[in-house]
Amino acid sequence: MEDEIRTVLSEELGDLATFGAEIPERYRRDWLSEQAVTPIAVIRPRTTEDVSRALRLCSRLGISVVPQGGMTGLVGGAQPVAGGVALSLDRMTAIEEIDEVMATVTVEAGATLGDVQRACEQAGLFLAVDLGARDSCQVGGVISTNAGGNRVIRYGMTRENVLGIEAVLSDGTIVTSLNKLLKNNAGYDLKQLLIGSEGTLGVVTRAVLRLHAQPQSFCSAFCGCADFAGVIGLLKAARSTLGAALTSFEVMWPSFYDFMCDGLPELRRSLAGRHGVYVLIEASGPAGQARQSLEDLLAAEIDAGHIADAVLPKSERETTELWAVRESVSEYGRLMGPLTGFDIGIPTGEAGAFVAEIEAALARHWPDVHALSYGHIGDSNLHLVVNVPSAGAHQPHDALCDLVFEAVSRYGGTISAEHGIGTIKRDYLHLTRSPSELEVMARLKRALDPRGILNPGKVLAPPHSATSQAVSPTVSPSATPPSGPA
Amino acid sequence: MEDEIRTVLSEELGDLATFGAEIPERYRRDWLSEQAVTPIAVIRPRTTEDVSRALRLCSRLGISVVPQGGMTGLVGGAQPVAGGVALSLDRMTAIEEIDEVMATVTVEAGATLGDVQRACEQAGLFLAVDLGARDSCQVGGVISTNAGGNRVIRYGMTRENVLGIEAVLSDGTIVTSLNKLLKNNAGYDLKQLLIGSEGTLGVVTRAVLRLHAQPQSFCSAFCGCADFAGVIGLLKAARSTLGAALTSFEVMWPSFYDFMCDGLPELRRSLAGRHGVYVLIEASGPAGQARQSLEDLLAAEIDAGHIADAVLPKSERETTELWAVRESVSEYGRLMGPLTGFDIGIPTGEAGAFVAEIEAALARHWPDVHALSYGHIGDSNLHLVVNVPSAGAHQPHDALCDLVFEAVSRYGGTISAEHGIGTIKRDYLHLTRSPSELEVMARLKRALDPRGILNPGKVLAPPHSATSQAVSPTVSPSATPPSGPA
Repeated sequence: MEDEIRTVLSEELGDLATFGAEIPERYRRDWLSEQAVTPIAVIRPRTTEDVSRALRLCSRLGISVVPQGGMTGLVGGAQPVAGGVALSLDRMTAIEEIDEVMATVTVEAGATLGDVQRACEQAGLFLAVDLGARDSCQVGGVISTNAGGNRVIRYGMTRENVLGIEAVLSDGTIVTSLNKLLKNNAGYDLKQLLIGSEGTLGVVTRAVLRLHAQPQSFCSAFCGCADFAGVIGLLKAARSTLGAALTSFEVMWPSFYDFMCDGLPELRRSLAGRHGVYVLIEASGPAGQARQSLEDLLAAEIDAGHIADAVLPKSERETTELWAVRESVSEYGRLMGPLTGFDIGIPTGEAGAFVAEIEAALARHWPDVHALSYGHIGDSNLHLVVNVPSAGAHQPHDALCDLVFEAVSRYGGTISAEHGIGTIKRDYLHLTRSPSELEVMARLKRALDPRGILNPGKVLAPPHSATSQAVSPTVSPSATPPSGPA
Repeated sequence: MEDEIRTVLSEELGDLATFGAEIPERYRRDWLSEQAVTPIAVIRPRTTEDVSRALRLCSRLGISVVPQGGMTGLVGGAQPVAGGVALSLDRMTAIEEIDEVMATVTVEAGATLGDVQRACEQAGLFLAVDLGARDSCQVGGVISTNAGGNRVIRYGMTRENVLGIEAVLSDGTIVTSLNKLLKNNAGYDLKQLLIGSEGTLGVVTRAVLRLHAQPQSFCSAFCGCADFAGVIGLLKAARSTLGAALTSFEVMWPSFYDFMCDGLPELRRSLAGRHGVYVLIEASGPAGQARQSLEDLLAAEIDAGHIADAVLPKSERETTELWAVRESVSEYGRLMGPLTGFDIGIPTGEAGAFVAEIEAALARHWPDVHALSYGHIGDSNLHLVVNVPSAGAHQPHDALCDLVFEAVSRYGGTISAEHGIGTIKRDYLHLTRSPSELEVMARLKRALDPRGILNPGKVLAPPHSATSQAVSPTVSPSATPPSGPA
């Protein structure tokens, strides 16, 4: 059977398809998967028409297709499935057009985010979507996962930065909606379905991204608050004083801040004393103005009692030092064994209570646990990274997920704020989405991919969950992508 | 048959349903429809469960359901259909919760936009979605049409301001996704399908809207440019100098500006000479800062040759005078006979060429034509209002649409930037959406409304377009909603 399929693929797709042992390692696993899976073939189209031809063929053959971008996803979404093919967009890397008046860039899906950012910068424009894996991740994957990243509080998720999409459906239909207009209410906005559906409804082949003016200057401040109530007071004041100039509001609990500062000698504590919670704020604006706004904010917030101590860096070097702690997440490998990372959303006002509860619960179950809490709290996004040293290579991954996701559900949060569902969180999706929501998702999946060949088993369980297509990758929390969990 | 349906509706829905001559006029037509249509019944639910019960029943009976909000739509989307029922949300007006930390408001769909805006303002927060019909239009309608309005350049369309939705599908299934989190990537984002689908895929019953900090102060400036190249130069500079502080960039061609100033004695020309194009800019920011930024911008742009003359108002009264011309669109009734209004999107850089071409073409066909061009050009949204005096009550509506939409299609624009499709633009939708896009829309419609009972004939032609459910309202371009075309 597989031999027959190979013959057909080879005859119809020629050099677009590579088979068996010839398939390079990078198409066999994504960052978080322990075990490589060898698909029947990897197909690497050069054009949208190639993608269409490949999907039409796979649809006819009834074999599953896993779309692949830069393989930097954290939930197993691009992990190939045995008996199916992988469809990599990595040959479609063109940056087709930068329209300076519309402030848009039109790209092929396989272009890396970093390449697109740099091209826009050269044209004097700014692509606001940004994440640690910028030089590996591809625009198609960024769109399919509705990636979040560093600037959501100001510029929104990827969704808010996509104006147009071209995609190919599972039957090979090419749907081209390369809209550049900020306002277009002519019929259903089909791109919204493709964004964030993790390659289960269609394969994004091209996109129009919205650009902004280059921010003129940035200024950061670092604050120590006695407790989370102070953080909330500071957040409200920062929103109202800075408005759209507020570009980051990052919170670090001592569980994270002290652990990283104690463990990594190159990090420097920017405040003299110890505090209940730490906040890193960034503002942008015309030169001078951002710094002045931050100074005014800090003065008022110390008076209001929300901040115990604060520092405004006096040099580029001091700014880098402030951010170095927050960005030290890429050093987990040096400090901890295998870890389980959570990327959850918690209603902002409850994040303090949630962290206190979950850190205590984890310590009750696993007395030697390291549980590090930090995140984009301005966006309600909490990262929690857990390692149980005594468990060694056998981290209690499932038990940790059960405990954390139960609490997330109880707090009205989400099990994934930005990384997505993939296979890794699929069996927990019912904790944050209702049966009727799941049923509508399944209806949409059937409408756009009636044979169920597109990225089967990702996000939603396949209708017949015992098929070989539903094999989920074995997950190893030990591997971390180049940037670490954001 | 209708009698039997009445009996069943009356028995099962009790006082939620009103029949025949008892149905008040306001449920029989929306703003732009000449002819009232009396549906079998108007159903006015008090709760989401009522909506579910009504839809389940109509689905069983196979009768069509037209969701209704404030009836201020401009494309016939809420016009009842003969033989069906109207479902008005006007009893579900609760403003359920304002969450100051999350910066969200949770409302029922029948609340008017104005009531929600005022409630948020009292809580010290800001609902950015705003349009002229604010005190009549309802949140459900605003969401279903993805309304644009006055502040899109800074805060986005309605879509960008909706975090959660509760909706009822045609079979009565209640889908509750009242998410408050800015970041939530747990499965498909179902609300995106409901937003802007004009009540054809589900009935929105509740929503969570995103709020912002109150803008601190506003400052406007009015500029005369020699030509459209100057306008584009000014737009680029305004984006880069003001960034997120740029809240409006409104353009008025002489066809609009001179016609209104000459016709309405209460309007004052703020600049001494006549210019090729006029631009009204608004900036927001901390007090003093917005005005300073605008002053700097104008000085630089006069030097750059993009602006011929400009004025910064020195008082509240002068600011009101500047905006009075732009807002005089509500006075069309005093100046013109019946009109045909267009709400189109044109790639920004091409808007000047488009206006020149279309005004000339209209004058060639109808030598006495009034064709007024103006719009939210910062958002690529052009309004064009046409009256042919010699045609009297029989305006060449179809011929005007043919001529304008052909040009829109040729320029790569959209036939609707913000008002939507409804019935009025349905037969032109193929000019801006491809056959494969239309086919996918039809697939989604079948998936969520397999019996085709929800708002039939709106946006998409019904599968069997000869049924009585597909009757489009007779359109009279003479009626204008309270606010006029935005």
